Amino acid sequence: MHAIILSIGDELTLGQTVDTNSAWLAQHLAAIGLKPVAHLTVPDDQGAIRQAFEESVGRCDVLIVSGGLGPTEDDLTRQALAAFLDRPLELNEAALENVTRFFKALKRDMPPRNRIQAMLPHGTEMIENTAGTAPGIYCNYQSGDQKTLCQIFIMPGVPKEMKIMFERSILPKLAGAESGRVDPVSSVIFSKTLHTFGLGESAVADKIPDLMRRDRNPSVGTTVANGYVSLRINAYADSREQAEHDIAATEQAARAALGKLIWGEGDDTLQDVVATLLKTQSKSVTTAESCTGGLLAKFLTDIPGSSAYFKQGWITYSNEAKTEMLGVDAKLIATHGAVSDAVAREMAVGALRRASADFALAVSGIAGPDGGTAEKPVGTVSIALARHREEEAVDAHARTFIFHGDREMIRDRSAKMALTMLRFHLLGQPLPL
Amino acid sequence: MHAIILSIGDELTLGQTVDTNSAWLAQHLAAIGLKPVAHLTVPDDQGAIRQAFEESVGRCDVLIVSGGLGPTEDDLTRQALAAFLDRPLELNEAALENVTRFFKALKRDMPPRNRIQAMLPHGTEMIENTAGTAPGIYCNYQSGDQKTLCQIFIMPGVPKEMKIMFERSILPKLAGAESGRVDPVSSVIFSKTLHTFGLGESAVADKIPDLMRRDRNPSVGTTVANGYVSLRINAYADSREQAEHDIAATEQAARAALGKLIWGEGDDTLQDVVATLLKTQSKSVTTAESCTGGLLAKFLTDIPGSSAYFKQGWITYSNEAKTEMLGVDAKLIATHGAVSDAVAREMAVGALRRASADFALAVSGIAGPDGGTAEKPVGTVSIALARHREEEAVDAHARTFIFHGDREMIRDRSAKMALTMLRFHLLGQPLPL
Repeated sequence: MHAIILSIGDELTLGQTVDTNSAWLAQHLAAIGLKPVAHLTVPDDQGAIRQAFEESVGRCDVLIVSGGLGPTEDDLTRQALAAFLDRPLELNEAALENVTRFFKALKRDMPPRNRIQAMLPHGTEMIENTAGTAPGIYCNYQSGDQKTLCQIFIMPGVPKEMKIMFERSILPKLAGAESGRVDPVSSVIFSKTLHTFGLGESAVADKIPDLMRRDRNPSVGTTVANGYVSLRINAYADSREQAEHDIAATEQAARAALGKLIWGEGDDTLQDVVATLLKTQSKSVTTAESCTGGLLAKFLTDIPGSSAYFKQGWITYSNEAKTEMLGVDAKLIATHGAVSDAVAREMAVGALRRASADFALAVSGIAGPDGGTAEKPVGTVSIALARHREEEAVDAHARTFIFHGDREMIRDRSAKMALTMLRFHLLGQPLPL
Repeated sequence: MHAIILSIGDELTLGQTVDTNSAWLAQHLAAIGLKPVAHLTVPDDQGAIRQAFEESVGRCDVLIVSGGLGPTEDDLTRQALAAFLDRPLELNEAALENVTRFFKALKRDMPPRNRIQAMLPHGTEMIENTAGTAPGIYCNYQSGDQKTLCQIFIMPGVPKEMKIMFERSILPKLAGAESGRVDPVSSVIFSKTLHTFGLGESAVADKIPDLMRRDRNPSVGTTVANGYVSLRINAYADSREQAEHDIAATEQAARAALGKLIWGEGDDTLQDVVATLLKTQSKSVTTAESCTGGLLAKFLTDIPGSSAYFKQGWITYSNEAKTEMLGVDAKLIATHGAVSDAVAREMAVGALRRASADFALAVSGIAGPDGGTAEKPVGTVSIALARHREEEAVDAHARTFIFHGDREMIRDRSAKMALTMLRFHLLGQPLPL
């Protein structure tokens, strides 16, 4: 069963509003086994909307439309549907009741122009709108030769009204619970996402060549967002149980190949995962930041209850601040440069000695766009982790990385790599990068 | 001149990622008079992508494509283009140079599979990617009968890489500056956006009722994003000059009504604006943060060259850290609570005395979700600004705000309000909030 999602509105085609409806609808359709094969967005233009109807009905079993049902002159979806179906618009009593009830509830008179919202093409059905004035429209389309069959659902574009209408009236119909018009769903799509950090997309893919085959089910694809390479596992199956079983097997294979490079899944954040490790082990951390300028501490305190493992941090942006606040030897900076394993180690050690914490993370780098040299290009970042050894002693290890991208990306990746170094230390594993 | 925006990716059609590229591209196309007549999204399926090419080229002058240029097997856009054009993929030396240079800069070996990213359909051109490995593809499509002409631009789907490539290589070409291939624009939509912070959307709209009338040209609409309320001015006119003239008059009226609540326009960031004020006045600032946990310092160091005005900062998340690091009297905390004007002032004063800076900003608040009380609910945040008075003396003023939203929003708004307090101080105006 295939679905197409059609969104209507000048504000969408002109890019003044980001279309979030389509993604929301796609997720909900996929979850009941209706595969979204395309999203299409057209302007408030009757010809364009009509053409979109004409071209979509032959390509999907269900056409989900939102937008263009308002009372004003630029709302043309119902007119376009009437033209496409070649049927007149006529007053629908149930729809009129829906519109007038809404104004009654607000104790307002209905403006005459809202009456258009109760006009539906002959032979179509009203879908109740419990959150606004615009009723939806349902139409079980059949072409003259009966070869093309498509269910069309039209909803208002306002996300809140659309979502309530979809969940209340359309989802039950599609899932076959109410009307039985749609065949029971014969196949479902379930997804799971696993997140990695530190390797590029190709390097991740190279570790799981069999899983990445295009003809595989479940399929595995990689996506990159915010520096994380994520594996998206999509299973097509006859039942939810089967899909979950298939996904579990694929996930196991991915984890066997990638190990702890996979730091989380679904809605997890790297911050969550590190916070949970710290809390579970009753450990705490402090920070000494140069190029990240507070971002690492911000990440550590993103999590509610972060005071359990984070009490304080230093931002030592200038060389003088590194010396004055953390006791880094000015000669060390002069010899090795502020961006060096040696200085990052001393920053971490200085922070750890001054804080009440089990670990200190230090970051010093060149975020750019200026300040790079041939030896240390923009993106060069030294990161250190210090820990207590014996009673008085602390030690630290450091690594220097080169991150690519602009200033924002370099700072972001630096802070994430610092979290990653701490994570592997807490896991008792060497950093596999 | 018409444009179609085509986005490619299973994660988009399945709704796992919200497509923000299309809106961004549409805005930029509309601004140069290329009217986006449709957005289309198809999955990582060679047949579907090819069909999208076939059906789009006859309907637009410019086809803007993003996604499916990665190195893995689910990236099929270049193969689909080759099939559509009926031309073989061949190694493009310039594209190979683009890919290899990227890995060289990172001092890493190029994985063999990335070589596919340098394969382009015969007769197409490479578009340089300065932010990632995937070069874009340009093709000046002509049908066999010469009746269909369409310029096709293909970019990676990663928003950052896409945006840099579009602005750097595609926009100049489309604007006719480089090639003159595109005809001059006959009717234009120009937009300008003005940004405010501190008032809600209704409060902003109430200050400019005449500008907000629906039948007005230029029209003015409000949008809310990241705590900022922005005014979007859209002018429809026959020429660029007319549109710019109309927008300027509307902008003037908006500025007369809102004054310095308007902190910037277009791509400005609040960070930019504050940084420019600090640099212009040769002033510097330090930070003492509790609930924002480093975010305020991160904002201040977002800007290249921030070392001119920012040397160091403290994150004093626990009460003990406020006392030990900044000298805040523990009794003051016990009496007033850590979230109070009094403690915020002492944090700011303590930071200013310890730093070499002209100003200190301090933030102490309840970001939630826990920790609120009847008297100080979640969202209560005290913000102080300290400055030098005479030789040894410093003074500070503080304000307590209540911000709405979740933890992330409260922290974000707190840091932005601290920047706003500093901004108005640098402007020599009282905070109008």
